[in-house]
Parts: sequence; structure tokens; C-alpha cells
Amino acid sequence: MKIGILGTGVVGNTIGFRLAGLGHQIMMGSRNANNEKAALWVKTAGENGSHGTFAEAAAFGEILFNCTSGGGSLEALNAAGKDNLGSKVLVDVANPLAFTKDTPPSLSVCNTDSLAEQIQRAYPDLKVVKALNTMNCYIMVNPALVPGDHNVFIAGNDAEAKTKVKEVLDWFGWKAANIIDVGGITGARGLEMILPLWLSLWGAFQNPNFNFQLAKGPKPQQ
Amino acid sequence: MKIGILGTGVVGNTIGFRLAGLGHQIMMGSRNANNEKAALWVKTAGENGSHGTFAEAAAFGEILFNCTSGGGSLEALNAAGKDNLGSKVLVDVANPLAFTKDTPPSLSVCNTDSLAEQIQRAYPDLKVVKALNTMNCYIMVNPALVPGDHNVFIAGNDAEAKTKVKEVLDWFGWKAANIIDVGGITGARGLEMILPLWLSLWGAFQNPNFNFQLAKGPKPQQ
Repeated sequence: MKIGILGTGVVGNTIGFRLAGLGHQIMMGSRNANNEKAALWVKTAGENGSHGTFAEAAAFGEILFNCTSGGGSLEALNAAGKDNLGSKVLVDVANPLAFTKDTPPSLSVCNTDSLAEQIQRAYPDLKVVKALNTMNCYIMVNPALVPGDHNVFIAGNDAEAKTKVKEVLDWFGWKAANIIDVGGITGARGLEMILPLWLSLWGAFQNPNFNFQLAKGPKPQQ
Repeated sequence: MKIGILGTGVVGNTIGFRLAGLGHQIMMGSRNANNEKAALWVKTAGENGSHGTFAEAAAFGEILFNCTSGGGSLEALNAAGKDNLGSKVLVDVANPLAFTKDTPPSLSVCNTDSLAEQIQRAYPDLKVVKALNTMNCYIMVNPALVPGDHNVFIAGNDAEAKTKVKEVLDWFGWKAANIIDVGGITGARGLEMILPLWLSLWGAFQNPNFNFQLAKGPKPQQ
């Protein structure tokens, strides 16, 4: 499948490598077609990798990943262009981390809104699915990095788009039983609002290789 | 031990029953000394249970629990009175749910502040420990309700107070290895910001008997 990845940071690179290794054709999109990091990525990704502008990557992909930093996502999507985005599936992996001096770090949007909803409102035809933002990128593409069962959350308004995203998660190694659909795109609020706890836990564990698992008990008797 | 519980809702009642059953002396505190729910609670809790005003419960307890609704916590603590609160340990179980018509429900404070921090700022001598707010109250006092290992998070500035709270968690049945200290009281932001996801998951599972577990992998090689 042709996949466009917006953002050439470590998250975009890691997802791109994994998908290229699985035989998919990947175009990394960045602000400038001459992005050196993207060119380096292509050299190591091999024949399945290419790079271009945000607009070129958006036009190329049948499915798109938003791997830009949360604060730059709307600008990147604007550069990608409404026509290139069309009614594609956008897997929104970004976290709206506010790059302020707040301790602990804070979010630039939360509680009554979310980055995923901002994107969905700006591009109503786009099928935004929030996914994978609650863990580090090595676990995203290789859940076996953390032994045993643990969960990935998805949220989005379009059921068919969520089915496609579940298929991509299956490629990465996620068992269907470990994918938790929290509902419509407003569910992205809860997924993005995990970030402060995630950062605290990273500090407490001194190890970014952890993930959330939902342990369940029997339903209460009515 | 003498324990004061502020708030006579289901959370306060459940924690109070459990502690009374373990042989502790419990005073439930509410706005009015004539609170009917508290009087009913005392009838069923037996000889270890009593009830009074917020001020009486705060004066009574060697350790205090804040089980009021988040929006009413500061008012309840004000009624309890600075002198009665003193430099006691306050286990803050409350979530600052905004009782607006927002869908999904939102928080009245988050991101750059938290309810636990508001309480700590208002009563600098009080040793506030955020704990137990990330699960339903039946699991709080009986973690075995959810099979296997799962986690309770604590956050607070005072190490000795956190040690005391860990002891209380041990009474409830929490294994030491399942208690995760996320650091100082600012860590309460992340713990309170889990609430929107918790609510989404409750909806997705149609079952409130679940809890978060942290699955861990090996540390990345440097």
C-alpha cells in the first residue's frame, strides 16, 4: 500500500521504517522537499522509501500518518492541502505538547477539545483516527518490545476508517483483543490527556519502554 | 487508628466501611451534623462508625480522606478549618469533574494545575497525597475485585506522608509492588487527567470494574 507520513522526526521515521520493511511504499513528507533528515531516511529505508513535501506525501498516500509535533500539525496539514488530504484516513499519532517552560510539561489543547478534533473540524472530509499516541514509537510498531498483553487505544468518527487502522495495527503486531476503541473523535481528549501521566511515569521508571494495560474484573451484579 | 472521612457519598461510605471493618474508628464528616446519609451509614457500620461535621471529622482523624466531589472540596476543607486540618495527612481521592453539560464530561481544573495542588496551596501545612482517584471505589478498597496485578498511583510532596498512605493501601490489599509513586504533588495533574479516558473506557466496556496496569519492557540500550 502507498502510505504518506507527515513529519520526519523519530516517530515518523520509526513508523516509516517499519512500514517500508513490511513492503509498503512510503513517502515521508516535510516542509521542504530538500529536507536532509528525510533524504537520510530514504537512503537507509531502501527502495520502498521516498520523500517529498507535505503536499506530495499527502497526495501519494492511500493512508496518511500525522507524525508532526502537535503544535505544528495544523500548519503541516495546511501545507499538505485540502485537495491532497481529500477523504483519506489520517492516523493522528501526535500529542499537543506545549513547548513552554511549564513543569511538568503541559498540553496546548485539552479537556474540552483535542488536537484530533481540531484536525477533524478543519478537514471535515478527512477520516481522522487518533491512535498510538499513548506510548513511545518503538512500542507503536513493535508491541512485543513490552512482554505480555497491553493496549493501544483508537478514537474516531468513521467506523470504516477505524477498521482500516486496526488492519495497520495488525501489521505492526497488535492483537485485535488489545486494541480498545474508545468511541468517537471526542475520545481523543482522554487519549491526549494521558501524556502528563506518561511523562511522570517515564520519570518514575527511568525507562520509556512501558505501556498501559487495562485489567478487567467481572461486571457488578445489577 | 482514628480516621476522618470528608464526604458521605458512595466513595466516602465505601472507604469508611472498609476501614471500620478493619477495626479503625471512623468519623464521616458532612456539611451538617444531621446528615441522614451519614446517620444511616453509622447504623450499618457498627460501633467503629460515627458522624459529624466536616470540622468534627477533621479534628477526629489522625489521617483524613477527601472524598467530597472535586468541585466542593475546597469549600468542605474550609468548613473543616485550618486548625483541625493542621499538618495531618490528607488522602485526596477526589476528581475535579466539572458538572457542566460538556460531552464528554470535562474537568474544572487541569493541565497547568490540579485539585490536589489547589488544596496543597490553600493548606501548606497539610500533607496532601493524591491517591486512588483513577479507579472506582470498590476496587480502591479491594484490589482483588480485578484479578491479577494492576496499579494505584500516588503523588505528594511529603515522603513520610506517602509512606503512611502506602500503609493504608496495604490494609486495603494493595501489594507494595503495585503502588506507583509518580513524584511530587504536581504529578496529581496526570492522575486527575486520566478521568476523561476512564469515563470513555467505562462506556466502551460497559463495566466499571477495570483498572490500569503498567506493562514494562527492558530499558533501551544506551
